[in-house]
Amino acid sequence: MADNTVYRASTTAPVNIAVIKYWGKRDTALNLPTNSSLSVTLSQKSLKTHTTASCSSSYTGPDTLVLNGELEDIQSSKRTQACLQVLKRFRRDVEKKDSSLPKLSDMPLRLVSANNFPTAAGLASSAAGFAALVRAIANLYELPHSPTELSKVARQGSGSACRSLMGGYVAWRAGSAKDGSDSIAEEVASVSHWPDMRALILVVSADKKGTPSTAGMQTTVETSTLFPTRANEIVPKRMAAIEEAIQAKDFPTFANITMMDSNSFHAVCLDSWPPIHYLNDVSRAAMNAVETINRRAGEPIAAYTFDAGPNAVIYYQEKDETSVAGVFRYVLQAVGGWDGEYGAQIRPNERGGLESKTFMTLKAGVSRVICTGVGGGPEQTDQHLVDVGGRPVTA
Amino acid sequence: MADNTVYRASTTAPVNIAVIKYWGKRDTALNLPTNSSLSVTLSQKSLKTHTTASCSSSYTGPDTLVLNGELEDIQSSKRTQACLQVLKRFRRDVEKKDSSLPKLSDMPLRLVSANNFPTAAGLASSAAGFAALVRAIANLYELPHSPTELSKVARQGSGSACRSLMGGYVAWRAGSAKDGSDSIAEEVASVSHWPDMRALILVVSADKKGTPSTAGMQTTVETSTLFPTRANEIVPKRMAAIEEAIQAKDFPTFANITMMDSNSFHAVCLDSWPPIHYLNDVSRAAMNAVETINRRAGEPIAAYTFDAGPNAVIYYQEKDETSVAGVFRYVLQAVGGWDGEYGAQIRPNERGGLESKTFMTLKAGVSRVICTGVGGGPEQTDQHLVDVGGRPVTA
Repeated sequence: MADNTVYRASTTAPVNIAVIKYWGKRDTALNLPTNSSLSVTLSQKSLKTHTTASCSSSYTGPDTLVLNGELEDIQSSKRTQACLQVLKRFRRDVEKKDSSLPKLSDMPLRLVSANNFPTAAGLASSAAGFAALVRAIANLYELPHSPTELSKVARQGSGSACRSLMGGYVAWRAGSAKDGSDSIAEEVASVSHWPDMRALILVVSADKKGTPSTAGMQTTVETSTLFPTRANEIVPKRMAAIEEAIQAKDFPTFANITMMDSNSFHAVCLDSWPPIHYLNDVSRAAMNAVETINRRAGEPIAAYTFDAGPNAVIYYQEKDETSVAGVFRYVLQAVGGWDGEYGAQIRPNERGGLESKTFMTLKAGVSRVICTGVGGGPEQTDQHLVDVGGRPVTA
Repeated sequence: MADNTVYRASTTAPVNIAVIKYWGKRDTALNLPTNSSLSVTLSQKSLKTHTTASCSSSYTGPDTLVLNGELEDIQSSKRTQACLQVLKRFRRDVEKKDSSLPKLSDMPLRLVSANNFPTAAGLASSAAGFAALVRAIANLYELPHSPTELSKVARQGSGSACRSLMGGYVAWRAGSAKDGSDSIAEEVASVSHWPDMRALILVVSADKKGTPSTAGMQTTVETSTLFPTRANEIVPKRMAAIEEAIQAKDFPTFANITMMDSNSFHAVCLDSWPPIHYLNDVSRAAMNAVETINRRAGEPIAAYTFDAGPNAVIYYQEKDETSVAGVFRYVLQAVGGWDGEYGAQIRPNERGGLESKTFMTLKAGVSRVICTGVGGGPEQTDQHLVDVGGRPVTA
């Protein structure tokens, strides 16, 4: 008697933006990093990946993934295969212990995934993507593993994905074991511990796609003469200091470390051979604006950070909304995004003392904003992207 | 019987552009550097300071300096005073040994100085300026000191000035003595050893003056976490390697070290707190153009380097003139400077494979070029900027 049931489970997973940057692998197959990192998980109201994992003995052919309506080639993606194989093994272990369970591990998977933000925004979606993939399959398979245990799986898909399995403030411990067994993510503070952290993202139009981060970080590991100092000496100190700042909700310290670590990361990129540039004149104008805002305030009330691209992410606390986001809203009133989460409440401030060049460069170079803040981890949902017949649901 | 003679001596002194950068002082009063550096002295046909030192017992009042027609306040310039006091002491020692000599050390100095390039070009003129000042006074005083001995004096005026007292390829040894007695410049190779080194300077219009180098380098020393590695570990290795490359006239090695050291210097600037930015999008377009030219050639035939500003200095060998300078001449045919020394002979090449963005950014951002090359040290001249009556000569 054939069981033709389509088993389904769905989740959403958040984007995270590091304040201590992950840059450099000590093992490229297992995605083991050269240094620990720490990120803030961002609210899923603005940015999330929604993924449904389904399986059925009625499915034929190999496992498939439809991402934003397009069939992805996951057969030749070592990273995706690594995740799927580990999760199927975990399910097999569960099935072995209880023979009454359906043999999901033998059924082909149909995965459907969609982002609620345009890929064109230039935001790294792979973290949310792999976190959602792993979380959805873990839900489908009813795995008993904790988010931290699953973080080892997600890490193999995309390093920073391990940090998107939790909400709030998340550390990825580099670990030292060769097999990666101690390279795990863990929540260092929950959203509720420090809920008023906001993030304003300035989306900067880049004329061309820069160096992909996977290639870039290995160029840095192999060629930057300053990188070992960063990875071995500087980052460990910053990790300890920023965790303390987060526990104490000490924003000025959090801000300074965040900005310094972003600069250190881009410094080792410039010190790579050939040099890697992610920051452009618009990014530097955003840095300058934050410096001006902080100087005016007499203490750091805003912190910029930049990933592998020119977009600025500016952290601030809700109480400083007008002094920080209000200035950017004044400068960038013409661009889209102010109607999103947390955006509507931001009142345009005056110019905030910005130099005319900074003002003009931001105005000309920022194409949209995203108004978000710290948020929770993946959320299970009944909204499935695969129908009961196993067909993708068009959004 | 009063001797009213106006004693005069004149010299020109060159600009130098470092390939291993001086950035950071271990003693700010004596201008002692944290690391050794190495530069190429540039031809004085394009860039020089012309200085006349004069003294006379008929002069009244304090020592004066007229620079480019403007009276400078040298009384409150500790750096200038340091140079003048040491040189007067040297003269006094000479006079003590031979009482027949006129007592020039007791006479007020009138110094007149002029650059053959506009200050607006954004080229650091302090190196040529202090080298010319020291050399002119040493000539006036008929001091027996060698250029290397005088380099200790010029260094107190402006660190990099010590390298402008010699031609060709000049090393400034950081030294370790507290009094700076071993912090000296010396020629590591003469112009004639490797005469076909050319330099194309792309003058980039900066919208505002960036961080002054004296302040900037101390910010780096005090705050950059990556700086100690650069100063203590990386630069010493590069100094040895580039000296070897210069002796062997090995341009590819010379070029790679030059570019890497420029990047390392700007990396520690970015790693400073607050971060220091000298490179802008036009600078990065110049780097990109050099990378493209080198990739096309299959080996490094051009080397960029950037001082404390956005201007690019591009070194190449005369044999590669068309492949390097010719590409820039094609892109920048509309700007001035191609009629200068070495410029007239540069034939416009085709576009050289430059990406359209690089092409457009250079075209929009470079305001003029200077076509120069390696050159000799200071040259004594009979063209005095002070007349026999002690009055400044208007050029």
